[in-house]
Amino acid sequence: MDILQSLEWRYASKRMNGQRVPQEKVNNILEAIRLAPSSMGLQPYTILVIEDEALKKQIRPIAFNQPQIEESSHLLVFAAWDNISPAQVDEYIKHTAAVRNMPEEALADFKNTLLNMAASRTPEQNFEWAARQAYIAFGTGLVAAAAEQVDTTPMEGFNNAALDELLGLKEKGLKSVTLLPLGYRDTNNDWLANLPKVRRKKEKLFIMQ
Amino acid sequence: MDILQSLEWRYASKRMNGQRVPQEKVNNILEAIRLAPSSMGLQPYTILVIEDEALKKQIRPIAFNQPQIEESSHLLVFAAWDNISPAQVDEYIKHTAAVRNMPEEALADFKNTLLNMAASRTPEQNFEWAARQAYIAFGTGLVAAAAEQVDTTPMEGFNNAALDELLGLKEKGLKSVTLLPLGYRDTNNDWLANLPKVRRKKEKLFIMQ
Repeated sequence: MDILQSLEWRYASKRMNGQRVPQEKVNNILEAIRLAPSSMGLQPYTILVIEDEALKKQIRPIAFNQPQIEESSHLLVFAAWDNISPAQVDEYIKHTAAVRNMPEEALADFKNTLLNMAASRTPEQNFEWAARQAYIAFGTGLVAAAAEQVDTTPMEGFNNAALDELLGLKEKGLKSVTLLPLGYRDTNNDWLANLPKVRRKKEKLFIMQ
Repeated sequence: MDILQSLEWRYASKRMNGQRVPQEKVNNILEAIRLAPSSMGLQPYTILVIEDEALKKQIRPIAFNQPQIEESSHLLVFAAWDNISPAQVDEYIKHTAAVRNMPEEALADFKNTLLNMAASRTPEQNFEWAARQAYIAFGTGLVAAAAEQVDTTPMEGFNNAALDELLGLKEKGLKSVTLLPLGYRDTNNDWLANLPKVRRKKEKLFIMQ
């Protein structure tokens, strides 16, 4: 199944059947998310991978009681950094130097660009930028799951502050932005499962110049 | 080549060789972007697909003179709606009713949810929300291009206001958010082409619970 077939096949499952997603498929989806690009390569986000049933049960009421939270196999929480700190930039530069086997000094200009960018913005602006990067990873995860024939429900509809509190994200310098339950569609009980996909026509979505 | 191999293969090309991407591949990439999911299904963005060489030449200085702007085959400009209007919601509802062959009245609650959401936010907040949705489509386009063995350079680094002015986006109710040149890497002249990819280790990027 190629990428277009996978995207046609996928939809935002409103009910899942509780079946477990095999570890190999989960690993592939997480690896795709890890490989997703981000501005300057910083990857200013963390993804929580929640299998714990008791925790999912606590999250469900925070997410408008959507059943897929509990019916999913794994619940991914995409959380963006709530600011960009010099320590985070430093860790990234050190890691880059190590991976590319080059002295840190060779990355001094790049480091300054990052530090200046972060310092020139408010924490809220840095968070908003980090959130956008998280959405690239989120989109990549969606496509990767579809390629593995794993269902997902991309979700923005939840109480971010309550989830951050429950998961202790503030202490980690994170704010939740989206949820992505992984699982398998419950075709018999999902009203959306057999409805045609609605997308803007290409003549509306694209301007050719 | 599966999706992980495609993601390993891709990188942000710093130089492209000017070779034209075949129309079939461009169409597949655009179709993947069209199929990308968005919150509430609204797809609050437009993508400009620029082949015109004179126009690319005008855009290059606006994008820090990055050579891929001109060396690319097609330059995609992702532009988010600068607000969410009742007319846009109405068009979406009418389109949904037509595609799903149902009366518009059956979508009245959903329509009110959308209208209330848009009305409860400032134009800036609606734009920021639309921009995040555009990043899902942007991420999907990146992955689809890699699957087609087409190189890309995801770009945030350009003067948004100047590009909006040049392309007349304000009059269209749009604001540019990202650029995605499509083309083929110039391995001989691209310093980044042969450097190892830097990504956060999975132990850092994920929290398993």
